[in-house]
Amino acid sequence: MDKELALELIGNKQFAALKSDLQEMNPADLAFLISELDEDEDFSEKQLIMLYRILPKELAAESFTYMDSDTQMKLINIFSDKELRYVIDELYIDDTVDIIEEMPANVVSRILRNTDPETRKQINELLKYPKDSAGSVMTTEFVYFDREMTVKDAFERIRKIGLVKETVYTCYVTEARKLLGVVTVLEMLVADEDQRIEDIMETNVISVNTHDDQENVARTMSKYDFAAIPVVDNENRLVGIVTFDDAMDVLQEENTEDFAKMAAVMPAEDSYFKTSVFQHAKSRIPWLLVLMLSAALTGMISTRFESQIAMIPMLVSFMPMVMGTGGNCGSQSSTLIIRGMALEEIRLRDFFKVIFKEFRIAFLCSVVLAIVNGARIWVTYSDPELAIVIALSIIGTVILAKLVGAMLPMAAKAVKLDPAIMATPLITTVVDSCSLLIYFTIATNILADRLQ
Amino acid sequence: MDKELALELIGNKQFAALKSDLQEMNPADLAFLISELDEDEDFSEKQLIMLYRILPKELAAESFTYMDSDTQMKLINIFSDKELRYVIDELYIDDTVDIIEEMPANVVSRILRNTDPETRKQINELLKYPKDSAGSVMTTEFVYFDREMTVKDAFERIRKIGLVKETVYTCYVTEARKLLGVVTVLEMLVADEDQRIEDIMETNVISVNTHDDQENVARTMSKYDFAAIPVVDNENRLVGIVTFDDAMDVLQEENTEDFAKMAAVMPAEDSYFKTSVFQHAKSRIPWLLVLMLSAALTGMISTRFESQIAMIPMLVSFMPMVMGTGGNCGSQSSTLIIRGMALEEIRLRDFFKVIFKEFRIAFLCSVVLAIVNGARIWVTYSDPELAIVIALSIIGTVILAKLVGAMLPMAAKAVKLDPAIMATPLITTVVDSCSLLIYFTIATNILADRLQ
Repeated sequence: MDKELALELIGNKQFAALKSDLQEMNPADLAFLISELDEDEDFSEKQLIMLYRILPKELAAESFTYMDSDTQMKLINIFSDKELRYVIDELYIDDTVDIIEEMPANVVSRILRNTDPETRKQINELLKYPKDSAGSVMTTEFVYFDREMTVKDAFERIRKIGLVKETVYTCYVTEARKLLGVVTVLEMLVADEDQRIEDIMETNVISVNTHDDQENVARTMSKYDFAAIPVVDNENRLVGIVTFDDAMDVLQEENTEDFAKMAAVMPAEDSYFKTSVFQHAKSRIPWLLVLMLSAALTGMISTRFESQIAMIPMLVSFMPMVMGTGGNCGSQSSTLIIRGMALEEIRLRDFFKVIFKEFRIAFLCSVVLAIVNGARIWVTYSDPELAIVIALSIIGTVILAKLVGAMLPMAAKAVKLDPAIMATPLITTVVDSCSLLIYFTIATNILADRLQ
Repeated sequence: MDKELALELIGNKQFAALKSDLQEMNPADLAFLISELDEDEDFSEKQLIMLYRILPKELAAESFTYMDSDTQMKLINIFSDKELRYVIDELYIDDTVDIIEEMPANVVSRILRNTDPETRKQINELLKYPKDSAGSVMTTEFVYFDREMTVKDAFERIRKIGLVKETVYTCYVTEARKLLGVVTVLEMLVADEDQRIEDIMETNVISVNTHDDQENVARTMSKYDFAAIPVVDNENRLVGIVTFDDAMDVLQEENTEDFAKMAAVMPAEDSYFKTSVFQHAKSRIPWLLVLMLSAALTGMISTRFESQIAMIPMLVSFMPMVMGTGGNCGSQSSTLIIRGMALEEIRLRDFFKVIFKEFRIAFLCSVVLAIVNGARIWVTYSDPELAIVIALSIIGTVILAKLVGAMLPMAAKAVKLDPAIMATPLITTVVDSCSLLIYFTIATNILADRLQ
């Protein structure tokens, strides 16, 4: 069912048809539909809660997790206490925490008032972990066994706990809350039902710490193809697990953040449309200001050559090309190296290897560009000297730009800055001034006789 | 165990210690260690195969999947037929196909010679799917039941098939190979063992087609939090499944590809170091050439203002700043919009919404930048007219750049081009000429009396 059909059925008050169509839907699709309807101007809050209330209770609660935070907040505000309690009960604790993190204080306190003390305690624990840490993305709902249990006991426990999430397939063995081992449902299925868990568990467990960075956690999971990874505190006590679905979200978020940083935008929390015009401007202006003022320095270089420019005004017309090519070459190198470092394919100790490689690549690129451009200028202006000035400037600029583009991100990493800030805009600004210096110096020397 | 220790133990021929340390390792870590050793110049092929042979057979085969393709190829070349057969038998078919796709023809035919006819048939089927399609990333190993089977029968089958991959937890119900439903091991565990599968299966199945784009498949899985998704052919016959670990790899690959495209680099298949200098140059030169020649057009704009430049040479010194600010503003907008479209947060039908939003953002940004810069110039040069020229140029350039940066990626999408090519380098080149035109036009008008 799509938005138009839903609006039509609501408009015509065909609630029976609406209900029967809606309850066939997957919770995620249903949530997207509701969020989409909610963005429509003709759709009132009254219609929103009406729509929610005709859904089967369980489906309604399940789809709640997938809605965007605006719609969630509206619903929470309209919910009766009973409705709110039911939804919170059905939610996984990590999802509740995600929701809480998006809500204003009054909504948060209403949510916390409507949770049982045990859940509230867990929520408060989770809220304490720093943003972007393993602790902040983990869930505290997982299955754990004692080492002495038999496979039969273990299956009994799984049935009793009755979690519906896939994470039930990897279970953890603990003793005094310390993580001893891990056992999968598949291993339990294949084992004899009287076998003891400690005899079939894997004791060589790969885990992460609550304070580890969420991006590293996701990468670790991707590296080992894990569906879930245990999270332990500093005393090796098992406090939660991170599951593959959250790891996928983390990877996407971190990539989006890198894209933003590399375009000189300070990353926003929300999607493009959810971020206000004012917020957008606020996250774009700081870097623009820094870069604009740095570009003023570049301008000062050209003032040093004012007399030459006055004598050969044509020199100005090649400035955009020399600067542009330098900027493009630098951004190619810096982007590839920033990405390589993010994927841990390039490490700091590879510094000289990278520089040497970029130098050779730069040499090849610059020769091709210089020949094409030199030939073009020679033919267009019948001025071999000018062609040589431009060709040499291109060679110098390209090599310099690629070396700067390779070095700056690695230097940033070395001093524990995020390499992503050393991307195109900053590199371009740095390279621009160097390009102009190279260009005018070469021009002044080769065209010296015209400058008398 | 790290590379240095391994090299030391090998050097001292302490094979017992080496073996006992290695066999404690996780297959993925072991593979990374072996690949790392293999990159070391002092490490011979003889040592490589020796190292491989002291490993327990099963661990050796398991870690083989995680090695990089160079090391895999070396090993395959040294393997006896018996060793090769054992490894191929242990591999999942999708992993074998991944390996085959990286190997030269003679190695491929040797691999195929050493697989049993049934596997060979499946491998050949998988190799037929287009690159980047769901068919090319799926595995053909999954568990399927008949609808009449009982839960007990179903568990029996799982035990018998003895797959060790997590994908066993979602099983598929088929009839004449058509996909009827899906049932999870957890649902089976909670059900009575005499219940029939058709009574507990979910029939509202979300599946993808073999020819669907792998990126869409991964996004679908992430949207629904699926650990696995069934892949069907055009007749709705179940032919394979895509699992979350492959989906995570696909997301990372696609992101890396976007980063490369957005830096005007044609995406490479391999990691930074695996790509040769010549290949790097080849994938960087085409866009550099295109952009360089377009920048020549920008240069021609400034030739139109040669006489003005000759009279007020100082005008040149503000060119880098005006062009740079335009480029940065444009790349902020284009990057955010390209990413938003990749994540499906921004759709084509949002065109006017985006343009209007970017216009308002541009207005805010431009006013701030213009005030700061105008004030700076007024103070530095005590030249209010010049300050006004620059401030107005900044306002015009920023607004124009943001609109161009927003429009071009969406226009590319509309004509079915990849929006990612409309990123910083191309936008900068387009915006550069417009900025210069705006700048010189404003300057010529306001400073008219100095140009007499």
